[in-house]
Amino acid sequence: MEDEPTETGERLAALMADEQVDEAATLLRSLHPGETAHLVLELPEEDREKLLLALPPEVGADVLEELPDDVAAATVRDMSPDDAARMVQEMRTDEEVDLLGDLPPAAAEAILAHVDDADAVIARDLLRHAEDSAGGLMQTEFIAIPKGMVAGEVVRQLRDKAAEYADYPASYLYVLDEAGCLDGVVSLRALLLCDEATPIWEIKHPSAVSLRVDTAREELVRVFRTYHYLAIPVVDGDGKLVGVVTQDDAMRLAGEEAEGEMLKFAGIVGGEELRDMPFHLRSRRRLSWLSINILLNVLAASVIAAYQETLEAAIAIAVFLPIISDMSGCSGNQAVAVSIRELSLDRIEPRHALWVLGKEVTIGLLNGLVLGLIIGLVAWAWKGNAVLGLLVGGALWINTIFAVMLGGLVPLLLRRLNQDPALASGPILTTLTDAAGFFLMLALATRFLHLL
Amino acid sequence: MEDEPTETGERLAALMADEQVDEAATLLRSLHPGETAHLVLELPEEDREKLLLALPPEVGADVLEELPDDVAAATVRDMSPDDAARMVQEMRTDEEVDLLGDLPPAAAEAILAHVDDADAVIARDLLRHAEDSAGGLMQTEFIAIPKGMVAGEVVRQLRDKAAEYADYPASYLYVLDEAGCLDGVVSLRALLLCDEATPIWEIKHPSAVSLRVDTAREELVRVFRTYHYLAIPVVDGDGKLVGVVTQDDAMRLAGEEAEGEMLKFAGIVGGEELRDMPFHLRSRRRLSWLSINILLNVLAASVIAAYQETLEAAIAIAVFLPIISDMSGCSGNQAVAVSIRELSLDRIEPRHALWVLGKEVTIGLLNGLVLGLIIGLVAWAWKGNAVLGLLVGGALWINTIFAVMLGGLVPLLLRRLNQDPALASGPILTTLTDAAGFFLMLALATRFLHLL
Repeated sequence: MEDEPTETGERLAALMADEQVDEAATLLRSLHPGETAHLVLELPEEDREKLLLALPPEVGADVLEELPDDVAAATVRDMSPDDAARMVQEMRTDEEVDLLGDLPPAAAEAILAHVDDADAVIARDLLRHAEDSAGGLMQTEFIAIPKGMVAGEVVRQLRDKAAEYADYPASYLYVLDEAGCLDGVVSLRALLLCDEATPIWEIKHPSAVSLRVDTAREELVRVFRTYHYLAIPVVDGDGKLVGVVTQDDAMRLAGEEAEGEMLKFAGIVGGEELRDMPFHLRSRRRLSWLSINILLNVLAASVIAAYQETLEAAIAIAVFLPIISDMSGCSGNQAVAVSIRELSLDRIEPRHALWVLGKEVTIGLLNGLVLGLIIGLVAWAWKGNAVLGLLVGGALWINTIFAVMLGGLVPLLLRRLNQDPALASGPILTTLTDAAGFFLMLALATRFLHLL
Repeated sequence: MEDEPTETGERLAALMADEQVDEAATLLRSLHPGETAHLVLELPEEDREKLLLALPPEVGADVLEELPDDVAAATVRDMSPDDAARMVQEMRTDEEVDLLGDLPPAAAEAILAHVDDADAVIARDLLRHAEDSAGGLMQTEFIAIPKGMVAGEVVRQLRDKAAEYADYPASYLYVLDEAGCLDGVVSLRALLLCDEATPIWEIKHPSAVSLRVDTAREELVRVFRTYHYLAIPVVDGDGKLVGVVTQDDAMRLAGEEAEGEMLKFAGIVGGEELRDMPFHLRSRRRLSWLSINILLNVLAASVIAAYQETLEAAIAIAVFLPIISDMSGCSGNQAVAVSIRELSLDRIEPRHALWVLGKEVTIGLLNGLVLGLIIGLVAWAWKGNAVLGLLVGGALWINTIFAVMLGGLVPLLLRRLNQDPALASGPILTTLTDAAGFFLMLALATRFLHLL
């Protein structure tokens, strides 16, 4: 099924190293475009550009479509605008616009100046849409037919334009009324199964689901998950058909969203980092989150500062403060992650706060008890002081219950406030649980200092 | 495009509350199955079962297919085995097997005893495959044609069996040789565009990509991402065609994987928790990770215990220990998340360790410097002691560099050892960075104690 990717990759790298660019291009052309992406990624940056330029523009376009967006943009940016334009205009419109959108506006415009006029107009128009809206995601290659036709005519038209349609996502045909408005969808299967004389309106799908150019990512993904269609048409404000979003692209977007959520959860602003992105971008996206976090940390730690005398009198407590802080944070973050996921799966909404609270309290009671017992026994064994064990264990128990309740709720609250739960929940949670944990531990220690 | 989901939901709930189950069923039948899932989820558990039983079995099966796996299983479990069987045997095989696999084996067998013999044999056979392998994910509904046919015959056969094929994923037909082995794939489009007399072998896709029943999730997702096919056939060890995996299902699996990764990253073993799962499962999956983590925490904190005298002499240090621990953990976890993602996107492999290290060191130098400056200034301002500021800031700077390097590498190391990076990286990272941070801070403080 697969042509030993590493072996092919080594051959390709060897050919490029020998400057045998044309042989390398021939090798690449023998593969499915999807297979080429991984191989091209393995090459040094300057070789990628050379290799693509050695390919016929339409093949180069196929490879560009398969490369990760950032790599494709970097590769095109190194080409002269007219070389880039030759390749870019052979790309599917949605991929072309993705690519141009990742370039600095001036670079994109320089390329578009060399693109065929009609294509350039379409591309400039599409670039206006938000990247993750239906308008930004759609391709303008689709098969439209007027509503008056009969099946036989449609099939003849398909045969006549077979070459042009070859790259179109072609599970459905779109029926337009006189004004160019979407009137219905016909599946290729229905067309195949009906008689030549059947009027198209008779085999039209009864209820056509469509998206609007401004439909946002979340809603778009929800529609694909609900209906499982292979492609969904996109209409403008007047109901005119302007493009098609494929299931493939919608689900890739959903996957990227889920992956971005983990990065945001780990504190990377925007949820996007790959290590070959520019240094200043990577540093800034991490640092902006860290620098807020460190200020919140100082706030929480100021609770400790208020209890210096207790600490001096019972220095053993200092050993347990980071443990209380860390473990409460861990328990709370588990609850945060479950809430974020249930939110993104539409399983809960902000109004389910009480239900979430109930589910978390019981977990907190049990898990907190177990963790409290472990740390209490450690404290007791270490200092031979049962009261110390009780204090440390009790504080962790109570704080775990607090942490999971808070962890479950904070994402709901942020969603209600239209803030991003994945990015902001963690810092809010740990600040509050740290402060609460330090206070619990130190207030209890102050109260029972004579027993420590 | 959408029938006001909340309004319909309220009507449905009201009908169920009035025990007007048949009216509720009629309302549900007027919707697309995908739209029903959300509505049924909103109902109390006992109502779900009642409502499904009031639907014709084939409609109930459609609804079951759309419900989340765990909810579908819980609903079916409450039915009598013969009620359940009537509905289950109308499901697509892949969904049926998913559902049965989520039931206790005895309950699944009780239902299968009431399923038609031929269906039961297929289901039992499929249940043997791992849930996330091609065999566990495939459906056995596909259109196979012998290789000797011409296009016209194939179309006639499709028309004859149109009713039976209605629910089949039908973008492709599969061509079999005399032995039942997969010989090629024909797209519906090619069939539509060719002449009646064209032999099937002539319009066959030249290179047919196929999966084996035991192809694992990761590879399966990779193949779909590479080729973008709408469906890929699955063959057994002898090359016999046994099923088809659709793009829809493969991409859903990929999405679930990405979502599960975040839960694992947050410390939920197995990466699966929804709050309506049984309490003991939820508690156990969280607690097993927490209890290892707390022991690692104790290990790290024992560094502090070794420096009690220093702490007693410079109690201000105790305030900064949790901050050093927390911030190093945050910085390191950002690097962990980026590595996990780059691994899952095939952008890096364990052998790229040095490259990752280089990319992280520079980030650590800059971000650590900024964080160190912030905390150093806070310490200086608080105690009016510049040396304290230098010590705290310096320790955080150095430890941040250490944390991001470690965070970048640990996932690569775990992957090399065939362990799950998402689950295990965090605890390993924080233990080592905590211990290093505490040591740095306290060793420096001990050395310069006379200046504090």
